[in-house]
Amino acid sequence: MRTQVAIIGAGPAGLLLGQLLSRAGIDNVIIERRSADYVLSRIRAGVLEQGMVDLLHEAGVGERLDREGLVHDGFALAYHGVLHRLDLKELSGGRTVTVYGQTEVTRDLIEARHELGRPTIYEAEDVALHDIDGASPRVTFRAEGQARELRCDFIAGCDGYHGVSRRSVPPAALQSFERVYPFGWLGLLVDRPPAAHELVYAHHERGFALCSMRSAERSRYYVQVPLEERAEDWSDEAFFDELRRRLPGEVADAVATGPSLEKSIAPLRSFVAEPMRFGHLFLAGDAAHIVPPTGAKGLNLAASDVRYLFDALREHYHDRSDAGLDAYSARALARVWKAERFSWWMTNLLHRFPERDGFDLRIQEAEFAYLLQSRAASTVVAENYVGLPY
Amino acid sequence: MRTQVAIIGAGPAGLLLGQLLSRAGIDNVIIERRSADYVLSRIRAGVLEQGMVDLLHEAGVGERLDREGLVHDGFALAYHGVLHRLDLKELSGGRTVTVYGQTEVTRDLIEARHELGRPTIYEAEDVALHDIDGASPRVTFRAEGQARELRCDFIAGCDGYHGVSRRSVPPAALQSFERVYPFGWLGLLVDRPPAAHELVYAHHERGFALCSMRSAERSRYYVQVPLEERAEDWSDEAFFDELRRRLPGEVADAVATGPSLEKSIAPLRSFVAEPMRFGHLFLAGDAAHIVPPTGAKGLNLAASDVRYLFDALREHYHDRSDAGLDAYSARALARVWKAERFSWWMTNLLHRFPERDGFDLRIQEAEFAYLLQSRAASTVVAENYVGLPY
Repeated sequence: MRTQVAIIGAGPAGLLLGQLLSRAGIDNVIIERRSADYVLSRIRAGVLEQGMVDLLHEAGVGERLDREGLVHDGFALAYHGVLHRLDLKELSGGRTVTVYGQTEVTRDLIEARHELGRPTIYEAEDVALHDIDGASPRVTFRAEGQARELRCDFIAGCDGYHGVSRRSVPPAALQSFERVYPFGWLGLLVDRPPAAHELVYAHHERGFALCSMRSAERSRYYVQVPLEERAEDWSDEAFFDELRRRLPGEVADAVATGPSLEKSIAPLRSFVAEPMRFGHLFLAGDAAHIVPPTGAKGLNLAASDVRYLFDALREHYHDRSDAGLDAYSARALARVWKAERFSWWMTNLLHRFPERDGFDLRIQEAEFAYLLQSRAASTVVAENYVGLPY
Repeated sequence: MRTQVAIIGAGPAGLLLGQLLSRAGIDNVIIERRSADYVLSRIRAGVLEQGMVDLLHEAGVGERLDREGLVHDGFALAYHGVLHRLDLKELSGGRTVTVYGQTEVTRDLIEARHELGRPTIYEAEDVALHDIDGASPRVTFRAEGQARELRCDFIAGCDGYHGVSRRSVPPAALQSFERVYPFGWLGLLVDRPPAAHELVYAHHERGFALCSMRSAERSRYYVQVPLEERAEDWSDEAFFDELRRRLPGEVADAVATGPSLEKSIAPLRSFVAEPMRFGHLFLAGDAAHIVPPTGAKGLNLAASDVRYLFDALREHYHDRSDAGLDAYSARALARVWKAERFSWWMTNLLHRFPERDGFDLRIQEAEFAYLLQSRAASTVVAENYVGLPY
């Protein structure tokens, strides 16, 4: 089997790249280790930057997003009970974010790919990349009990942090940067209307809490917990009690409780691998970098990587220019690191760090007090939250 | 001997408070452990915020400052050789800073106090504060071989980090916050025109460097050094070589060398003591807080403390209201902590930290790259540098 671009991973990054390539007449095959149902069952982010919304439209999958996505003009920060709303639209010159679950993005992309009749090979086992430093890379795998080989011009590694793509690069050719945070987020999904129409990020002396949502009827809540905790030790009641304790009174009172649909703990990590290209392999999304979820940047960074990579591949095939491919890693990383900086900063602003001393706490308080009084500081948060330009 | 306000310390904070009080008809005596010549020989900061310039005018000591001070509309940041000018005036809505040595401020205030005929007792030994938690505090000391006592309504502790004032507060009544940085600044003063008309703050992989000045003819340069270094081990030539190595080429070429007038190493420290009031003792300036010099905030914070304290004392004596005195500590600390935050941030942005890893370095680079592209981020730096509102 042969294609132009072999895409490893059928998450939103791989599917979006495949969709853009297919519409541009560039042949591609997606290879995914899991089943489609498994991919769709993963609960992930749901705040889309304008740039990602635009890219989904360009990919022809913006219709349901337009219909069902919740456009948010702002969000709130809370610090020891004081609420501070950031008017994203006003501060960023008219830009907004759209709340639309990653699962929904994935579902739309799967359907669009199905309509185009492009192949996605699910439940591929023993996926391995070969000859990635030459002009004729290959992907081998097992599917439906058969050993298969896919020859291609390029491989797009969109298979996440634990995927095979990054691990296929010789270790000496990659430099890794990492920060592990001493806590996780315990998240709970519930079919109740959200406590507030916009997201509320709350700092409290007991730890961080977040009120988020997937739709007008489905809420997603988080509380910061020590890494040693286990989700199964938290009853729904204990979760909601802890959540409300950390929220400003008016928000806490508006939390509608109900049986959890899902409850899990995610660790927080910052990670970047450099460069994002090795030979004919291009890494995109979580395969190359992880951000803590605080800034809602993970999915959006995958989209900006795909933007750069798609443009580069189109230039290669349509314009016979490799300038975009050669510039890909540097362009992507420049944006990635700014989002890493913002996510790290926002994580620092809002969480309690067990090892930190009084000086750090006072700096954190001063940061928030300064935000309250400074339009420029609020604009910095807003322009990062809606997404820096591609 | 009796007065209304006993001021401990004849540095700029004590002298400025004394001048403002004297002009408002409030009796005060300044007690200083050192000689006037010693106080004037200390080489210190020289970048005045607009708020401090205004306050000096209000105190009647703005004439020479207007004549000789250098008004700066901007300054430059350099990162690995890339220069980024921050137009303070444009970004901050017309505000600027004025370069005028702390020594000159002190000299003007000493002269003004002399003209008003108000007493300053220099070389006071064994200064001790008594009954500061009651309505009749006292200061005892020895001067010209005589034991003396000064009774007063209030004591203003303006005697710096090592002074007796803060140490007179019962330890249990004070909370201290501190951050010691793992490096110092080696500074050199030289009678040569500065390398640039505006200040240049440079990050370099060998460490931080700063091009500053005291006048159009006198330059003040700094390089970051490990704490173990000693100033006497640095020849002038070695200093200038190291300085130029860390500066962008065009700035390095413009450094005019000459014999040093002074050369010394200052450690960098963040420190705040809370509260800034204990009974009838009010701390102001370095007696209550220290900032690393990176943001040029030390002298300016002393001035804003004096602003709040003078207003409060005037309200007490003229309006018979203690509201200002009761609010003093909280008002001063709110501004202090924002300046601490900025100084800490700017120190982090520009220095090399021996213990930091690659992730920290990339975040530092991303911060600078983001500053280059974002007007809002540049405005945040500018509005802090010219000084947040009182």
